[in-house]
Amino acid sequence: MDYPQNIKQLIESLTTLPGVGQKTAERYVFSLLKQPATKIQEMIVGLNNLSNIKYCEQCLTFSDTNLCHICSDKTRNSKQLCIVENIQDMISIEKTNQYQGKYFVLGTLLNTIANIGPKDINIEKLVKNINTNLKDQSELEIILALSPTIEGETTALYLVKILSSPRIKMTRLARGLSTGSSLEYADELTLTNALKYRNEL
Amino acid sequence: MDYPQNIKQLIESLTTLPGVGQKTAERYVFSLLKQPATKIQEMIVGLNNLSNIKYCEQCLTFSDTNLCHICSDKTRNSKQLCIVENIQDMISIEKTNQYQGKYFVLGTLLNTIANIGPKDINIEKLVKNINTNLKDQSELEIILALSPTIEGETTALYLVKILSSPRIKMTRLARGLSTGSSLEYADELTLTNALKYRNEL
Repeated sequence: MDYPQNIKQLIESLTTLPGVGQKTAERYVFSLLKQPATKIQEMIVGLNNLSNIKYCEQCLTFSDTNLCHICSDKTRNSKQLCIVENIQDMISIEKTNQYQGKYFVLGTLLNTIANIGPKDINIEKLVKNINTNLKDQSELEIILALSPTIEGETTALYLVKILSSPRIKMTRLARGLSTGSSLEYADELTLTNALKYRNEL
Repeated sequence: MDYPQNIKQLIESLTTLPGVGQKTAERYVFSLLKQPATKIQEMIVGLNNLSNIKYCEQCLTFSDTNLCHICSDKTRNSKQLCIVENIQDMISIEKTNQYQGKYFVLGTLLNTIANIGPKDINIEKLVKNINTNLKDQSELEIILALSPTIEGETTALYLVKILSSPRIKMTRLARGLSTGSSLEYADELTLTNALKYRNEL
């Protein structure tokens, strides 16, 4: 006894989602089988719409127009450009309401193991974006908001190397203890950074 | 900054899957955005096919014909009827290759908290199925293969009550220690059952 072909095909298709294996995909399918047809239709419509998603041509985030509402917002500080790995990270930073500058979405981080090199990140668009910005003002602060992982560090080093210029000030997000974390369980590198970059009160 | 309407709708739609919250659904959508269009089309086809799934009219498992290949298999022992909660459980039992009887899929277990009563399990079909079986032979063994949970026990008690008859022998799956489990960490009820139903060697 095995699943019918249709079910098997859907299970296999669902296992392409991140973190979804055979068992989870089976659970999803049996849950879908119990759902009303309208719910499944909604999901199908949503999946169909994915091919219509458009991106801002300047910062590469989601946008229905050529320029997203952040890139086209004249009130935002165009002297600051925050470089993020992906749109999720950009949304996380926006949610803090602390940043009023512009963004640029790399799409991915450099990863030698996964064979992701400089050609795979949107570097040309980034340079074009920076040049456009530098036309309008004398100085630009580039904030590297990349994850503190090996890939993030590699990408940051690469970007510092190719973007360095007297008119560009490059910064990165602060390193230190996460809010709510326990000093006792902090790893050595985190604690080293927390000591090194300690703040005056 | 927020997700475009299309993305939001798909995220919401994916959160109807079991165990999938907002964050997981977002992860799925961003993963889907990176997948080739053909992969998404496969998923859409699979979802569309769900409405064409047919069930065996006798045991209620998946079947492309009126009777599934187990119900229509003359070589299988029709003196045994194994009652399971759902099709997954039936497939698990089939995988052991130890059972040669027939099946019946309840669809759900009785659950007073979730307000699932006797009307919600396929009891009429079950009684009809049993009567059909009893026409052909003098005796029938009904094996209750339900999970050892409160809902499983409740359902088992209910089924014993309404199905009891001199020609029906009712059994349930053995209780005891799971293979590979540690006696030290077995709960009291499991250990009590393991003692009570000990086997002679």
